[in-house]
Amino acid sequence: MTVARQTLRPADRRLLGLEPDGDDPRAFTFEVLPHLCRTDGQFYGGAALAAALAVGEAATGRPALWSSTQLVATAALGDTIRVEAEVVAEGRSVTQVHVRGTESGRLVFNAVGSTAAPREGGLAGLGQAMPRVPPPEDCEGWLGPRRAAGIDAAWSRDALTIGHHLVSEHREAPLLDASPGRPGHMALWARLHGDLAPSPPALTPAALGFLADMVPIACARACGVAGAGTSLDNSLRVGEPAESEWVLLELDAHVAVGGHGHGHVLLWSPDGRLLATGSQSARLFSIDDFAARRAR
Amino acid sequence: MTVARQTLRPADRRLLGLEPDGDDPRAFTFEVLPHLCRTDGQFYGGAALAAALAVGEAATGRPALWSSTQLVATAALGDTIRVEAEVVAEGRSVTQVHVRGTESGRLVFNAVGSTAAPREGGLAGLGQAMPRVPPPEDCEGWLGPRRAAGIDAAWSRDALTIGHHLVSEHREAPLLDASPGRPGHMALWARLHGDLAPSPPALTPAALGFLADMVPIACARACGVAGAGTSLDNSLRVGEPAESEWVLLELDAHVAVGGHGHGHVLLWSPDGRLLATGSQSARLFSIDDFAARRAR
Repeated sequence: MTVARQTLRPADRRLLGLEPDGDDPRAFTFEVLPHLCRTDGQFYGGAALAAALAVGEAATGRPALWSSTQLVATAALGDTIRVEAEVVAEGRSVTQVHVRGTESGRLVFNAVGSTAAPREGGLAGLGQAMPRVPPPEDCEGWLGPRRAAGIDAAWSRDALTIGHHLVSEHREAPLLDASPGRPGHMALWARLHGDLAPSPPALTPAALGFLADMVPIACARACGVAGAGTSLDNSLRVGEPAESEWVLLELDAHVAVGGHGHGHVLLWSPDGRLLATGSQSARLFSIDDFAARRAR
Repeated sequence: MTVARQTLRPADRRLLGLEPDGDDPRAFTFEVLPHLCRTDGQFYGGAALAAALAVGEAATGRPALWSSTQLVATAALGDTIRVEAEVVAEGRSVTQVHVRGTESGRLVFNAVGSTAAPREGGLAGLGQAMPRVPPPEDCEGWLGPRRAAGIDAAWSRDALTIGHHLVSEHREAPLLDASPGRPGHMALWARLHGDLAPSPPALTPAALGFLADMVPIACARACGVAGAGTSLDNSLRVGEPAESEWVLLELDAHVAVGGHGHGHVLLWSPDGRLLATGSQSARLFSIDDFAARRAR
C-alpha cells in the first residue's frame, strides 16, 4: 500500500506537535507539552484519542471513522510519546488499524479503530435531534469541575499554567427543554482557542476527540454529585465533516455501579450537523472525595 | 498475579464452547459452530465480543467492565479460534486487557477493555429512563431483516440451519411513546433459548454482547430504508448485574455518512435496570441492495 504521510492534517500536527519518527511512514512522535496534560499535570486522555485518530489517518490515507482508545498508563510533562499505526486489515472502503502510544517502550495507550473512504451513494441519515441551547456568546466560561469547586486555583483563565484548557474553551450551555429521567443530561459549548486554533475554523476528528473528553462529569451528575472521573478509554465515531469553530458537546450518563460509570457525548455543529459521537467508561469520584484525598 | 481460570463463567463456556488452551492460563480456544455464525455462515461479531468479554474475565479474575472489539477478518464454520488476553495494566480496582482472537495465527478480532471490581461506597446512579413497551409475550417473533424481507429463507425458526438465531430469540417491541427526531429508535426483546440458555436464567456480560449486535438495523432505519450492516466493531459497557431471562435492546441510530453509520444500544432488564450499553460502527446496506447483489 502506498502510504500518504501528507495526510496528517496540518491542524492536528500543530495541536499535538506530531513529528515523523525517522523513515517509518506509520510512526510519529510528540512531546507531552503543558496543553496536552490534565489539570493535575498528567497526560490528557483526550490527547491520546486525538493522536490515535490523527496517526490512523496519516498511516492509511483515509479519514478517521472511529477509534476506541484504551488509556493504559500515565505519562508526564516532557515525556516523548511514540505513536505507531499498524494496518490490520484493508478493504475497498475501510481500513482497520491498531494504534499504540508508547513512552520509552512502555505502553501508554492502545487504540483500535477504522479509517474509511465515503462510498458514493452510500446510506446517509441522522438519528438524533440537537437539543435547544443558547448560543455560545450567551453562555458562561467554565474550566472544569475542580476549578468550578475552587479546588485547583482561582476561577480565571489567566491563572492557568497547565492543562488542555490552555488551548480549549468550554462554556456550560443550559438545556432549554426538560430531559425527564436523564439526570446527567447536560451540554457544553467547546472550541479550540489561541495560537493552535485553526484559521479558518475547522474541527478535525482529532480536535473533536481532544475537546470531547467530558463524559465523566455527566456520569457524576447522574449519581447526584458534582464530580468527574479518571477515564479508562476515550472513544469517538465520526459523522459529518466540520468547518465550525464551536461544537456543542451534548453529554449524557448511562449507568454507574460501584464507582465505575459509562456515558456518551454527541458533538453538534451550531447549525445542527452531528459531527461525531463518543462514549467513555471512567472511575468516578465526587469533588468532595477528591478534596478530602488532597487534604490528607 | 494469581490467575483464576475458574472465573470463566460456566454459562459462557457452554455458549461459546471455550476450552483451555494447554497450560496457558490466559488463553482459550473454541470452534466456530453454526450458532456462532451470522445467517450467511460467517463468524458472528456478537460472538467475538462475547469471547473477548469472557476471556478477559477469566484471565483477570474480575468481572467485565467494557470491551471494544474490532472485527478484523471473517472466520468460517469449523475454524478454531484461539482467544488470548494480555493484561496491559492492573490497578487496585481496574485491570486493562488486550484480547486477541486468531485463527491459525491470522488476526480475527482485536479487543481493548477493562475488568473491574466494584468499589465499596463507589458512586452509583442511572442516567436513562427505560422506554415503555409491551411485555415479550405480547410481541412477535423476528429473525432479522433479511428473513423479514423473505430473502434468506421462509419466516420460520424451524427452517434455520445456521446463525445465532439458533440459540437466541428476538421479538420486535413497539415503543409506546413517540420519539420525535429519532427515526432509528426501536426496541427488541431478546433472550437465549434452547439447551444453551442458562437455568436459572442469567445474562452474563458475554451473553449480553452476544444478543446485542443489532445496532446497524436502527442505523438503516434512520436512513429511511430497511437494511442492516457489516459491523466494524462491537462494544459493550457493563452496568447492573442481570439474573433476567429477557433483555430489552433499546436501539438508536446516531449518524450515517457515505454508507458508514454509528449507533448505540441500551440493554434493560424487564424491571428497569440498565444492564449494559453498547455502540457500533458498521458498513450499512439496504435489503434491496443486498438482494440485488445476490441476484447478480
